Amino acid sequence: MTRTITLSIAAVLLAGCAALPVTSALAQADPPVAEAPSPNAIVDAAPAADWVEIAPSDLMVMQLAPDAQGKPRRVVIQLMPPPFSQGWIGNMRKLAAAHWWDGTSVNRVQDNYLVQGGDATEKKPLPEGLAVVPESEYMTPIAGLPERVSGEIGDQAEARTEMTYYARQGSEAFPRVHDAYSDYSLFTMGWPVASNDDAKSVWPIHCYGMVGVGRDLSPNTGTGAELYTVIGHAPRHLDRNIALVGRVIDGMEYLSSLPRGHGQLGFYTEDESPTPIVSVRLANELLVNQRPRFAYLSTDSAAFAQYAEARANRRDPFFIVPAGGADICNIPVPVKAYPWVKPAE
Amino acid sequence: MTRTITLSIAAVLLAGCAALPVTSALAQADPPVAEAPSPNAIVDAAPAADWVEIAPSDLMVMQLAPDAQGKPRRVVIQLMPPPFSQGWIGNMRKLAAAHWWDGTSVNRVQDNYLVQGGDATEKKPLPEGLAVVPESEYMTPIAGLPERVSGEIGDQAEARTEMTYYARQGSEAFPRVHDAYSDYSLFTMGWPVASNDDAKSVWPIHCYGMVGVGRDLSPNTGTGAELYTVIGHAPRHLDRNIALVGRVIDGMEYLSSLPRGHGQLGFYTEDESPTPIVSVRLANELLVNQRPRFAYLSTDSAAFAQYAEARANRRDPFFIVPAGGADICNIPVPVKAYPWVKPAE
Repeated sequence: MTRTITLSIAAVLLAGCAALPVTSALAQADPPVAEAPSPNAIVDAAPAADWVEIAPSDLMVMQLAPDAQGKPRRVVIQLMPPPFSQGWIGNMRKLAAAHWWDGTSVNRVQDNYLVQGGDATEKKPLPEGLAVVPESEYMTPIAGLPERVSGEIGDQAEARTEMTYYARQGSEAFPRVHDAYSDYSLFTMGWPVASNDDAKSVWPIHCYGMVGVGRDLSPNTGTGAELYTVIGHAPRHLDRNIALVGRVIDGMEYLSSLPRGHGQLGFYTEDESPTPIVSVRLANELLVNQRPRFAYLSTDSAAFAQYAEARANRRDPFFIVPAGGADICNIPVPVKAYPWVKPAE
Repeated sequence: MTRTITLSIAAVLLAGCAALPVTSALAQADPPVAEAPSPNAIVDAAPAADWVEIAPSDLMVMQLAPDAQGKPRRVVIQLMPPPFSQGWIGNMRKLAAAHWWDGTSVNRVQDNYLVQGGDATEKKPLPEGLAVVPESEYMTPIAGLPERVSGEIGDQAEARTEMTYYARQGSEAFPRVHDAYSDYSLFTMGWPVASNDDAKSVWPIHCYGMVGVGRDLSPNTGTGAELYTVIGHAPRHLDRNIALVGRVIDGMEYLSSLPRGHGQLGFYTEDESPTPIVSVRLANELLVNQRPRFAYLSTDSAAFAQYAEARANRRDPFFIVPAGGADICNIPVPVKAYPWVKPAE
C-alpha cells in the first residue's frame, strides 16, 4: 500500500529542517549544497506516462469578444469526470450543442470572489430536456469512485493515499494539509476533493479557477446555464452548497482581469459593459485543426506527490523557511498544452 | 478570561446542526425560523465603539495613472502597526516623504499570485539612510505584543482568545481554523497572524490584498522600495520568507484587474505597458480635504467574533450546509470608509 516517494538528495538532507529557518542554499558558499528541484522543475521532469490527455469531449472552449486591442480571448474549461456533477455537466453539453451561450455575456465580476456569465436578461429560452439535479449531487458517494481511492478512504485506517494520510497526520517531509473545511482534503482522479470522517462521500473544492453553476435559493440547484469561476481566495464556504463542474485550464487571465462590477454582488450596472461571449463549444465539435489539446499531471503519479511535497517545503534558493505544509488550493494540479500537430492528410 | 459571545437566537438554534445538511430557513415554511444575520449584517450592526479609526500617518495613498476612460485610480494601503515590520515601514515612510515612487510603475502582474510595482529600471537612486533590516524581523517576538495577547499565547493553556482556542480545538459553533501552515492562526491588533506551539513569535499572513516587500535572494531582505500585493489564493509559503508591511483597503480592483504580464514571473515584456504610479503619499502629508478616512472593525470586539463565527457557519438563506470552519484568509477584517466631512473654517 505504501508507495515510496523518491526524493532528491538535497530534499532528504533538508527534510529534517523543514520547520526551522535554514540558510539559503545560494548563501552557503562552502560546502556546496546540491540545489533541490523547484516544484516547476519537478513537473517539467515528469515522465510522459504521468500525463493524462484530456478528451476533447471534456474540454469546453469559450470565445470572448476580442479585447480593446483586437486580440482574441479564448478560455478553455476542463469538465469534471464521472461520477462528479454529471447532471449539471449533461445539461452543459446540451447547452453547448444548442449554441445556447452564443451571444450571452460575462455580467458579474466581484473582486476576490468570482466572475459569472450567462444570459443577463434571464429571459432566453433554455433548450428542452435539461435535467433538474437534486442537491444531494453536490456530494459524491464514495461508492461511485474507483475502488482504489474509495477503499482507501473507507478503511478509516492506514490504508490511505499518502496525501490523505498526511492530511491527517502531518509530517515534516510531506504536506500537512490541515483543512479548516473538512476532515480530509486530497486529490483524486486529477481533482481536489474533501471528505469527512464518516467517509460516505467526497465533494469537489472551490479553488482558484474552479467553475461552478449559478443558482437561485434552495431548493433550486441551477441548470448549468449560468456559470462562475473563482478569481480570489478559495471561497470554500460554497463547497457542498453549489455545484462545481470543472476548472479553467487556459485563458484564466481573460476572466480574472476583467473590470470589477459595481452593482450589488459585483453585477455590472447599466453604465458598465458586460463582456460578450461569442461562442461556447465542446472541443470535439470543433474542426480538428481548431481543437486545443491539454493534459494534466496524474494525481496518482510519483511526480505529483513529489511536486506537492515541494510546494509544501520550498527549497528553491529564494526560500529561507519552508512552510512545512500547504493548503490544498495552493497545490494546483499541473496542466500543459500540447503543441498542435496537423494530422496527416 | 473567557469572553462571552452573544449569538442571535437563530444562531444558537442552528449551532448544533453545523456539520449536517440543514434545510434553508427560507425553504421551511412552518414553523417560521428567525433569519440569522449574515456576516455583512453583523458588521453593519457593530457599534461605533468597535471601529478603530486608522491614523492618517498609517495610510499610504497611491495614485495610479487614470484608466483608459480617464477615471482616477486611487489605491489606499494601511500600514501594519508596531511591532510588526517597522524597519521596512520606516523605509517606506522615507521613500514616500522623498516622493521616490512618483514616476515609477506597476511592472509585474502574475495571475493568481501578485501585482508588483516600483522602479522597473532598478537604477533610480534610493534616498539616503534606509535601514537594512535583518531576516529575523520577518517574525515578531511575542514579547513585543500587547500583554493581553502575548500572555494568552504564551500560557500554552486554556487562557487564549476564543479564536486561538478554537483554532486548536475546533467547534461546531466557532470557526475551526485548522491551518496548513502553522500551529495557530489568529487575529491580533486587527491583523491575521500565525504562530507555532513554541509561542516565541508570531508572523503576519499572506492573505489576499496584503502588501509585501520585494527582495532579491537571501540574505537580501528588500528595502521597501519594491512592493507587491497578493491578487490570488493566499501564497502562505511566502510567510516568514518575506516582509509583509500592510494591506490594500481601498482601490484593490485597480491592481487585481490589471492585464497580466507575459514575461518570466509575470513581469511585463517590452511589448506590454506598465501602469504609471503618479504619486505615493502618506495621508498626513496630504491636504486635510484630500485625506481619506478609514476604520477597521476591532478584532478584539464581540462584533468581530460574531462576524468570524458567521463566516464559518453561514446561515444566510443561500446556504444549505454551513462549512463549520473557515480559513483565516476567508475572514477578511472589515474596513469601512468614513464620508469626508469638511472641517469647520
